[in-house]
Amino acid sequence: MAESSLTKSPTTRREFLGHAATATAALTAASLLSSAGCSSSTARLGASKGGGLIGPGNVVLFQGDSITDAGRDRRREDHANDIRAFGTGYALLAAAALLANHSEAKLTIYNRGISGHKVFQLAERWDKDCIALKPNVVSILIGVNDIWHTLDGHYDGTIEVYERDYRALLERTKRELPGVKLVVCEPFVLRCGAVNEKWFPEFDGYRAAARRVATAFNTVFVPFQTMFDEAVRTTPPAYWAGDGVHPTLAGAQRMAQAWLEAVSTATA
Amino acid sequence: MAESSLTKSPTTRREFLGHAATATAALTAASLLSSAGCSSSTARLGASKGGGLIGPGNVVLFQGDSITDAGRDRRREDHANDIRAFGTGYALLAAAALLANHSEAKLTIYNRGISGHKVFQLAERWDKDCIALKPNVVSILIGVNDIWHTLDGHYDGTIEVYERDYRALLERTKRELPGVKLVVCEPFVLRCGAVNEKWFPEFDGYRAAARRVATAFNTVFVPFQTMFDEAVRTTPPAYWAGDGVHPTLAGAQRMAQAWLEAVSTATA
Repeated sequence: MAESSLTKSPTTRREFLGHAATATAALTAASLLSSAGCSSSTARLGASKGGGLIGPGNVVLFQGDSITDAGRDRRREDHANDIRAFGTGYALLAAAALLANHSEAKLTIYNRGISGHKVFQLAERWDKDCIALKPNVVSILIGVNDIWHTLDGHYDGTIEVYERDYRALLERTKRELPGVKLVVCEPFVLRCGAVNEKWFPEFDGYRAAARRVATAFNTVFVPFQTMFDEAVRTTPPAYWAGDGVHPTLAGAQRMAQAWLEAVSTATA
Repeated sequence: MAESSLTKSPTTRREFLGHAATATAALTAASLLSSAGCSSSTARLGASKGGGLIGPGNVVLFQGDSITDAGRDRRREDHANDIRAFGTGYALLAAAALLANHSEAKLTIYNRGISGHKVFQLAERWDKDCIALKPNVVSILIGVNDIWHTLDGHYDGTIEVYERDYRALLERTKRELPGVKLVVCEPFVLRCGAVNEKWFPEFDGYRAAARRVATAFNTVFVPFQTMFDEAVRTTPPAYWAGDGVHPTLAGAQRMAQAWLEAVSTATA
């Protein structure tokens, strides 16, 4: 029985709109606070699982391009957990949940994403922006620029170059940080804005390369594209990323939820 | 059996650390994604409740002082749902959850908090920063400066003035926006930083005044102080707000969770 709350008397605040995830459902506690990942194809929530990638006292590092950077204040980048050093994207939202819900774990979280970067540019700054931080967990989202900049004519990389560079980066990371836990995030796009037919089928090759890298290095893999493919079944792409590449607040929250789910349900 | 994940072989990612909310627990899906509000004394989650303050197509407005402002980009304040127009505080985090988990509801969310403001300063700009937006839901967090500025000698207000101004503001809001739903957030402090004995018992009087106002106007009340009082039982105050007033990322996330819970479980 969908009834607009606007037609109710101002003194009556009880809405009987049910719990279905429909356009007319009221925003109930269950739907707001436990729907994280509800529309993704990743593991179900709720059931006891054991597992989880991040341990107490861990240092967690988010790396990547502008989607990770999200306008962070670079002057504060040495300040772990600093509210202005995360930017306004999935890294901030995921870090917020980690820090709030595991306050006793004393986590240390950094964001060193930089707009416009491709894999080789991560490699160029890896000493300062990864190794020196001695992270226990390193999460990387990279790839969109590796293709976008070739479409723009600013770069002459290929899928092979992307994969080769990415493998080299992870080999080096594992060598220099024994015991490090890796999270490879799937590059994704929404079919709107700057993303047109010219991106395909090439873009799927980059996604597949990222997945091969994740498998080869036994990392956690965060299926962002799968998550967004599910999201657009109910809500148009521009709602999640206006230009097809940079997430809106809603898109960033969905990413954070998918990231948290992948990381917290990680098993051997 | 608490075992540091750092002692595990890098190829073994399964952690058997159980689910207790202890310092050695792994960050499991259940603890990360459903612990919202778990340490607060507000309504339990999970059970079907019906209810919920926000309806489809609603305009939601966050108002208040610096805790709400949180460094938002004021040049973008007319852009609803804009990721940079929310600042980096509880309003951003709550809006992210609303927009992501209720994408079909087509919500329109604004943040018009301004640093340093007291109740009378909200009133001075209420036409532009509330009425003109025609909000269906108005959430207000105000009060810290009403006392802080008197302690600093910059203001000569009292609890009575605070309450009188607040009642007048809500009367006007209800009159000019028939059917509007109001959310009064409890002013709070953490006992550290700038917050010392001089704030008490006076500060509790402001909290009580906010609660009286909420009751008088039949608004939702978000018990932020109660929530933080619970949080500091396990983690020191500075973790939640370094100066006692402005929340860290962890503190802002706890606030967002409490806000979402209060709003989504609102009943007549």
